Amino acid sequence: MSARRQMALNAFIFPPGHHEAAWRYDKSQPERIYDADYYQQIALAAEAAKFDAVFFADSPSLNGAVEFNAAGRLDPLLTLMAIASVTERIGLIATASTTYSQPYNLARAFASLDHLSHGRAGWNIVTTDSAAAGPNFGVDHPDPTDRYERAREFVDIVTALWDSWEEEAVLLDKAAGRYADPDKIHRVDIRGRLLASSGPLNVPRTPQGQPVLVQAGASNEGRDFAAAHAEVIFTAQRTLADARRFYSAVKAQAAQRDRDPDQVLILPGISPFIGSTQREADELEQRFNELTVPAYGIRQIASITGEDVSGLDLDAPVPASLFADAGDVTDNRRSRRQVVAGIVERDKPTLRTLLHRLAGARGHRVIAGTPERVADELAEWFLRGGADGFNVMPPYFPGGLTDFTEQVVPILVDRGLFRRDYTGTTLREHLGLRVPENRFTRARSNPPRSDLPRADRRIGTGHR
Amino acid sequence: MSARRQMALNAFIFPPGHHEAAWRYDKSQPERIYDADYYQQIALAAEAAKFDAVFFADSPSLNGAVEFNAAGRLDPLLTLMAIASVTERIGLIATASTTYSQPYNLARAFASLDHLSHGRAGWNIVTTDSAAAGPNFGVDHPDPTDRYERAREFVDIVTALWDSWEEEAVLLDKAAGRYADPDKIHRVDIRGRLLASSGPLNVPRTPQGQPVLVQAGASNEGRDFAAAHAEVIFTAQRTLADARRFYSAVKAQAAQRDRDPDQVLILPGISPFIGSTQREADELEQRFNELTVPAYGIRQIASITGEDVSGLDLDAPVPASLFADAGDVTDNRRSRRQVVAGIVERDKPTLRTLLHRLAGARGHRVIAGTPERVADELAEWFLRGGADGFNVMPPYFPGGLTDFTEQVVPILVDRGLFRRDYTGTTLREHLGLRVPENRFTRARSNPPRSDLPRADRRIGTGHR
Repeated sequence: MSARRQMALNAFIFPPGHHEAAWRYDKSQPERIYDADYYQQIALAAEAAKFDAVFFADSPSLNGAVEFNAAGRLDPLLTLMAIASVTERIGLIATASTTYSQPYNLARAFASLDHLSHGRAGWNIVTTDSAAAGPNFGVDHPDPTDRYERAREFVDIVTALWDSWEEEAVLLDKAAGRYADPDKIHRVDIRGRLLASSGPLNVPRTPQGQPVLVQAGASNEGRDFAAAHAEVIFTAQRTLADARRFYSAVKAQAAQRDRDPDQVLILPGISPFIGSTQREADELEQRFNELTVPAYGIRQIASITGEDVSGLDLDAPVPASLFADAGDVTDNRRSRRQVVAGIVERDKPTLRTLLHRLAGARGHRVIAGTPERVADELAEWFLRGGADGFNVMPPYFPGGLTDFTEQVVPILVDRGLFRRDYTGTTLREHLGLRVPENRFTRARSNPPRSDLPRADRRIGTGHR
Repeated sequence: MSARRQMALNAFIFPPGHHEAAWRYDKSQPERIYDADYYQQIALAAEAAKFDAVFFADSPSLNGAVEFNAAGRLDPLLTLMAIASVTERIGLIATASTTYSQPYNLARAFASLDHLSHGRAGWNIVTTDSAAAGPNFGVDHPDPTDRYERAREFVDIVTALWDSWEEEAVLLDKAAGRYADPDKIHRVDIRGRLLASSGPLNVPRTPQGQPVLVQAGASNEGRDFAAAHAEVIFTAQRTLADARRFYSAVKAQAAQRDRDPDQVLILPGISPFIGSTQREADELEQRFNELTVPAYGIRQIASITGEDVSGLDLDAPVPASLFADAGDVTDNRRSRRQVVAGIVERDKPTLRTLLHRLAGARGHRVIAGTPERVADELAEWFLRGGADGFNVMPPYFPGGLTDFTEQVVPILVDRGLFRRDYTGTTLREHLGLRVPENRFTRARSNPPRSDLPRADRRIGTGHR
């Protein structure tokens, strides 16, 4: 962290926008979402505003009702590489699934992105919530317990492979004909219950030592996993009170695992509708909500909560009991249900109003307001223990992002809450995250202490 | 094919060069092989010379003795995306393994590359010969029969997923709120013995319809597979007589499968040492050979043929019996052994000379000569039924490639054997390959004939 604590800002790129009706809005560009220059233009705007990173969500399946929404998605790593080629500083975070990837290939892909971008890669670790992915891979979608067991083994293998070449392994001694020191390139030989890998990786240690580990799981398993592994946590919080509870709980969990809480950054999502007056901002949000297709929203509610609301009157209040805690729901669905239940309980909306609320950013905080009001709210969350920064989720691209970078960011900079310019070149430097020590280098200089907690041995804790 | 038959030229990028001692040569740049601009510079040189494509080999393992050679390799797809970002026309072919990848992820990655490059992607299908890959994935490396069975199912799934969105599936009807026509987005529901996938893919149909299918297997299984599936075939042939035998055999095999032989291009590898005189070229080759490390070459021979030659005198002739056909060798090793046996039988080399021969380009044809002599040989192979073009394998980068593009290519252009400029924008257009018809679109207009051979139903045969 720099001397004065500053917030982190990511641009969460979700084409053609985070609002579910974005593709119908006249200033969105759904016809460009398979073009590299669309993403490059968005990322250049984020880099001009000195954002920490761009971020892509992902699922290896066609989710949502494609009849009503732009549901196709390019491979996030390739899209980030297109962005890396035209940018110099901004971090590059891609979501990739531990359930539907292979650890060796994933370790190599992120290591390659880290090399090719000179140290800007981050991996958002997900276990994939969508059951639709299973059949694409010829399997039944595993339950959350199995998914998280695989995720733990997966991350163990990936981080070990990233360490399999020590810093000084490449000698490049042309005169002696020695390219590398084989004593500094290691097999990892990890064998879990579900996954195994011998290594070494076929890519040398990367500029960041290891790409940044990001996590977004909101279920109990997800939070536990994040406290153990994540250096950055994305989260959906709709009120400051909720955000503060989550923030202090996760920092405490990390500390219990002997991790430095300052090395675990918490970034809630925030979707801003920006207008020069409050009325203009409200009208913009209203315009988007009018573009929603109720049949789509009803399918989305079924998909995220498991409840069929298609029989309800659009203009009657939603029964408060509908999304009450379902005892045997054990996966991420519980946390999504809780978000929906919270809205129903607090605001007693009609079904139409509920659909509009959820249309904004899939359960994340939506603010409509002037640039000052948006900046005020971010500052309050940041200064009052609710956030270390934000995952900015524009309702549409590219205009929804540039409204934020051109109108909100300067206010945050003037208040000393966000950087005026980059001071480093890697994503770790932007975020104030230490380079993890290489486990093999440490073992050489300092034999492992078997009493040290496992997470502490994996993630650097200031030995350098 | 254009009115006048012209050769295809690919730049096979193998950092820091195809000669095993390339990294020690003073004009090679092994210190740049993890930088995007190294690859971008090489590809820009190939594009300036109007090459059809750049090509990357690959294996998901650390092969060769890293002590003596630059064996680390970045992810080929990400490297191609870095190249795509700074080029406009040149094709982008990456090797990816059917044994160590997942069909859904691979189909999506190549479809994404095809979108992001506006139709320049090609997939070199390999089953991975290196047994070292298995333990990286926690499995025993399968035998060739199992690998090719998986490869056939894998390609069936990938090409079906590429067809899962029909051409006109995306409606983008903002007024009606209809993004796509669900009747034109299809499940594929393929269930093989080893692999299965439901689909649809989460990426729309790509600019090329399908990325170009490339194959390089030299074993019997590999040739059979190539005749059934490949649109481009890479091959190692050391003499025109061998090249002609291979060329006519593969074209005949394709015809037997009711494929148009002109839609199956055969590109032997060629590694040129270029000098302004023959003597200068020979000295350049000799310089590289002097930089080889015999211990490395001996390990390579063991790895590609299974024979341990470490006990032999470097300066005595290699016994002719050593690489004679081994009856129970069933995989690609047989073809590699045959290449080595051919050299031993024909030239009766010492072990040192054999090591130098194999150091050049792992069994591919090496020519040392003036630009005219190199052009003459390419012309002869092309005009006398040995090749449709060449996979150019420079002994080092970038100078070994630019010697070829600046000195050999103009001669080929002057003789009318190679294009003066691109006439199309996609890799299929450069190569004269038709866009495969979408199987679902065809089924709609023309119900499938069950008596039609399977390969013919998969690959476009001129219906459009």
